[in-house]
Amino acid sequence: MITPVPGPRSQKLVSQLSDIQNTGAVQFFADYDHSLGNYLFDVDGNVLLDMFTQIATIPIGYSHPRLMEALRKPENIASFVNRPALGALPPSNWVNKLKDVLLAVAPPGMNHVQTMQCGACSIEHSQKAIFMWYQRHRRGGRPPSEEELRSCLSNLEPGTPKISVLSFYGGFHGRTMGALALTHTKWVHKLDFPQPDWPIAPFPRLKYPLEENTRENREEEDRCLNEVRELMDKWAKIGNPVAGIAVEPVQCEGGDNHASPYFFQTLQKIAKEHDAALLMDEVQTGCGSTGKFWAHEHFNLPQPPDVVPFAKKMMTGGFYFKQDFKPTEGNRIFTTWTGDPSKLSMLDAVVDVIQEEDLVNNTARVGRYLMSGLYEMQKRYPGMVMNARGLGTLAAIDFCDAETRDKAIYNMKQKGILIGSCGEKTLRFRPTLMFQEHHVDIFTDIFDNVLSGLKK
Amino acid sequence: MITPVPGPRSQKLVSQLSDIQNTGAVQFFADYDHSLGNYLFDVDGNVLLDMFTQIATIPIGYSHPRLMEALRKPENIASFVNRPALGALPPSNWVNKLKDVLLAVAPPGMNHVQTMQCGACSIEHSQKAIFMWYQRHRRGGRPPSEEELRSCLSNLEPGTPKISVLSFYGGFHGRTMGALALTHTKWVHKLDFPQPDWPIAPFPRLKYPLEENTRENREEEDRCLNEVRELMDKWAKIGNPVAGIAVEPVQCEGGDNHASPYFFQTLQKIAKEHDAALLMDEVQTGCGSTGKFWAHEHFNLPQPPDVVPFAKKMMTGGFYFKQDFKPTEGNRIFTTWTGDPSKLSMLDAVVDVIQEEDLVNNTARVGRYLMSGLYEMQKRYPGMVMNARGLGTLAAIDFCDAETRDKAIYNMKQKGILIGSCGEKTLRFRPTLMFQEHHVDIFTDIFDNVLSGLKK
Repeated sequence: MITPVPGPRSQKLVSQLSDIQNTGAVQFFADYDHSLGNYLFDVDGNVLLDMFTQIATIPIGYSHPRLMEALRKPENIASFVNRPALGALPPSNWVNKLKDVLLAVAPPGMNHVQTMQCGACSIEHSQKAIFMWYQRHRRGGRPPSEEELRSCLSNLEPGTPKISVLSFYGGFHGRTMGALALTHTKWVHKLDFPQPDWPIAPFPRLKYPLEENTRENREEEDRCLNEVRELMDKWAKIGNPVAGIAVEPVQCEGGDNHASPYFFQTLQKIAKEHDAALLMDEVQTGCGSTGKFWAHEHFNLPQPPDVVPFAKKMMTGGFYFKQDFKPTEGNRIFTTWTGDPSKLSMLDAVVDVIQEEDLVNNTARVGRYLMSGLYEMQKRYPGMVMNARGLGTLAAIDFCDAETRDKAIYNMKQKGILIGSCGEKTLRFRPTLMFQEHHVDIFTDIFDNVLSGLKK
Repeated sequence: MITPVPGPRSQKLVSQLSDIQNTGAVQFFADYDHSLGNYLFDVDGNVLLDMFTQIATIPIGYSHPRLMEALRKPENIASFVNRPALGALPPSNWVNKLKDVLLAVAPPGMNHVQTMQCGACSIEHSQKAIFMWYQRHRRGGRPPSEEELRSCLSNLEPGTPKISVLSFYGGFHGRTMGALALTHTKWVHKLDFPQPDWPIAPFPRLKYPLEENTRENREEEDRCLNEVRELMDKWAKIGNPVAGIAVEPVQCEGGDNHASPYFFQTLQKIAKEHDAALLMDEVQTGCGSTGKFWAHEHFNLPQPPDVVPFAKKMMTGGFYFKQDFKPTEGNRIFTTWTGDPSKLSMLDAVVDVIQEEDLVNNTARVGRYLMSGLYEMQKRYPGMVMNARGLGTLAAIDFCDAETRDKAIYNMKQKGILIGSCGEKTLRFRPTLMFQEHHVDIFTDIFDNVLSGLKK
C-alpha cells in the first residue's frame, strides 16, 4: 500500500465526477489495465486482494489471458462490433453458442434459456414469463378476449390482471420497478418509488452453530413456511393471487441468510399446491462459487425450479426456464437487444476455464479452508465476530454491530484487502473462482491483525 | 438475392432455436462477419440493404473500420475484459470518457449524465430520478421520517408514495414493469402483466399535408394538451399526483406520430405549472438520425427537458438530467454494473466519425432526398401510400391497410430491402447515419416496383 484508500488521485477524480453525477457510492478509482487475477490496482498505485470482485461479478479474475484471447479471436469480432437485435436477427452461430455455453452449464433438468442484459431485467422478464404462464392456465385454453386485448393497453383489468409475486423480507432482486417490488433490504433502494402492494414473507433467521440448534431452526423455518401459506391464501382471497414465489438460494444483499434444503423443498411444494411458480434467483449465487455450479443444487429439489435468472459472474443476463414457461407467441419476451452476443463470447472462455481447471470443486475446497479460518477467528474474538457460514467461497461472518464491521472493512482496505458488507452487520466474501488457499492465508492474517486492533 | 428470405439455412436454424426458446419474432439468421456498411448478409448468402438496422441501433453501419480499430486499441482492452461495478469502482479514464464522449454530444443546456445498460433500464432509472426529485420537493427540506424509511421496505405508504407518471396512447418506452407502465402500443407488449393505473393522454394525430391542415392540427394538439391538463388535475385530486410526463419527440413504435414544436413547448409549460418533470425519451430518436443530434432540438423548447434517456444508436443506455435531478445520496441510482465502459469505448469511435464526417447534416440532407422520393410515390400510388413524414432519415409513410403494408415489407425483403413497420399500417425508415442518396435510389426503385406489383 502506497497511500491511504482512496488516495489523492482517486479523490481528485471523485471530485471531478461529482460535477456530472452523484458519487456517494464511489470507493476509489481503479486501474483495470494493471489489475490481474485476484488483485485490483487503484489509480494511486495501491494493490488490493479483491474478495468482493465488483459486487460478485468477476469469475476468473482480472485480465485473464483466456479473456484477452477471446477478445482477439477473429470469429468473435462481429459479436463486439455489430450488436444484433437478437430476438429478430440472431447471428449464425447463436444456436451453437446457446448450446455450447449456456445450456452446457444449465441447472440440472433445465434446457430452455433466454438471454437478457443484466440481473434486474432478467428478473423482470422471468416475472413476465411467470405471469403469462399463470394467465394461460387460468384461461384454460381459451384465447384472450377482445376486452382483454383492448384493456391491457390502458393498464386496466381484465387485460391487466391483479396478480402478484410473493417475496421475502431481506430479499434483493434488483432496482427496476418489477425487480424492486421483490426487494426488501435497505431504504436507499426503495424510498420514494411507487410500488405494488404484494405479499412479503419472513425468511428464516437460523441460529449458529446449526448442529446445536436443529430443533429451533426447524421451528423457525416452519414459522416462515406457514406464513408463506397464509399469505398465499390471503392474497388469493382478496383477488390478487400469487402467480410466483421469488427467492434467493442464499439471501445475499440481505445479510447472507441461509435456509436448509428442507425449507426450499417445502417452498417448492407450497408453490405447487397453490399453482404458483418458483423463481430461484441465482444472479449472485450462480456460476460456481458455492461449490456447485448453481446454489440450488445443494437443495436436492424433487424437480427443477420453474425459472432461474442469472447475471453477474455469467457476464450476460438471462434466465433458464421449464418448457411450460416458453411464451406461446413471439415478441412477448423481447427487447431491442435481448442480450449481447459479445458477452457470450467472453462467457464461452470462462466456462472453458471453469471446466478445464475444475473451478467448481476449487471453490468447494477453498471454501472449506476459508471456513476453518473463520471458525478460528470466532474462537479468538468471541463477542466480536460470530455465525461464520457459507457454501463454497460464498461465505459470511457477522460482527457484533455495524460500526465495528464498517471499521474492520475500512481498516482491511488500508491494509490491502477489498471486501464487501451485507445486511446489518455482516461481512460477505465474494472472491473469484480462482481464489486459492494462499489467498485465504493473506486474508486471515490481515483479518486477525485488524480484529486484534479493534479489540479494546 | 440467392434464396427466398428466410432461406433454407435460416429455417433450419430457427427450427433448432425453437427447442430452446420462442422464435416467433425471428426474421432470419444473419451473417454479421460478412455484413458491411449499410448491407446485411444472411446465412443463405443473400445481401439486404438494411433500412431498419437492428431496430434503429447501428449508427455507422456494420463492421465499420473505426469500430474494428476501437476493439483492438490497447487502451480499450481492459474495458472489454474487466467489466467494473461502475458506481463503486470506476475506471481511471471514466471522467474523461464521460466528458469526451457523452457530454460532448449532450442535449443543449444539459451537463449531467448517468450511464445504464439498455433503453428500458434507462427509462426505469430516469423515472426514479424524477420520483426522488418530486418527493424531495414535497418534503420541503425535511429529512424522511422513520416511518417513511421503514414502510418503504414493505412497499407501503408513506415511504412508498402514490405518485404517477403521465404517458401517451401510442407511446412506447420499454418492456420492464416501470417502462411498460408508460407503453401503450400493442397487446403483445402488455397482456397479462400487472401494471399501475396511471394517467394516459391522447397524442395528436396530425393530418397531412401539414400546410393544408394548420387549423385542424392546432385544434387536435389543443385537444390533447387540454386532456393532459385535465388528467393531471384529476390525478392530483384522487391523491396519485403526476410527478412526471413521459413523451417521445416522435412516437416511433406507435406509428411514427409527430407533433409540432408548439405541442412540446406547451407540454413543458403544463409540466411546470403542475410541478411535474418532463421526461423526453430519445432512446430511438437520439444520436443524429433526425437531422439534429437530439430530436427535441427541433422544438426550440424554452429550456431543456428534465431528463433525457438514451440507448440504441448510443450503444450504451443512460440518461442526461438537470442538476436538480441529481440524487442527494449515493447508491440510489445504482445497479451492479451501472453501464458498460466497453460500450463507451465503441461510442467514442462513433462520435468521432459522426463529427468528422458531419453525419448529422448528412441525415438532414439524405432525409430531404428520401422524402422527395416518398412524395413521388404518393403521387404515383394514391390511395395506397400516404402521409409521408419525417425528420432527417427518421421517416415514415402510411399504407391503406396493414395487410398491404405487410405484403410490401415481405416483397421488399425478397428483393433485398430490409425495412420495419410501426403502428397499425405504417412503414418506418431507420437507416444508418451513413445512408446516402444512392441508397435512397436503390430503395425507391424497388419500392416503386413492389407497389406497382401490389396495385391490382
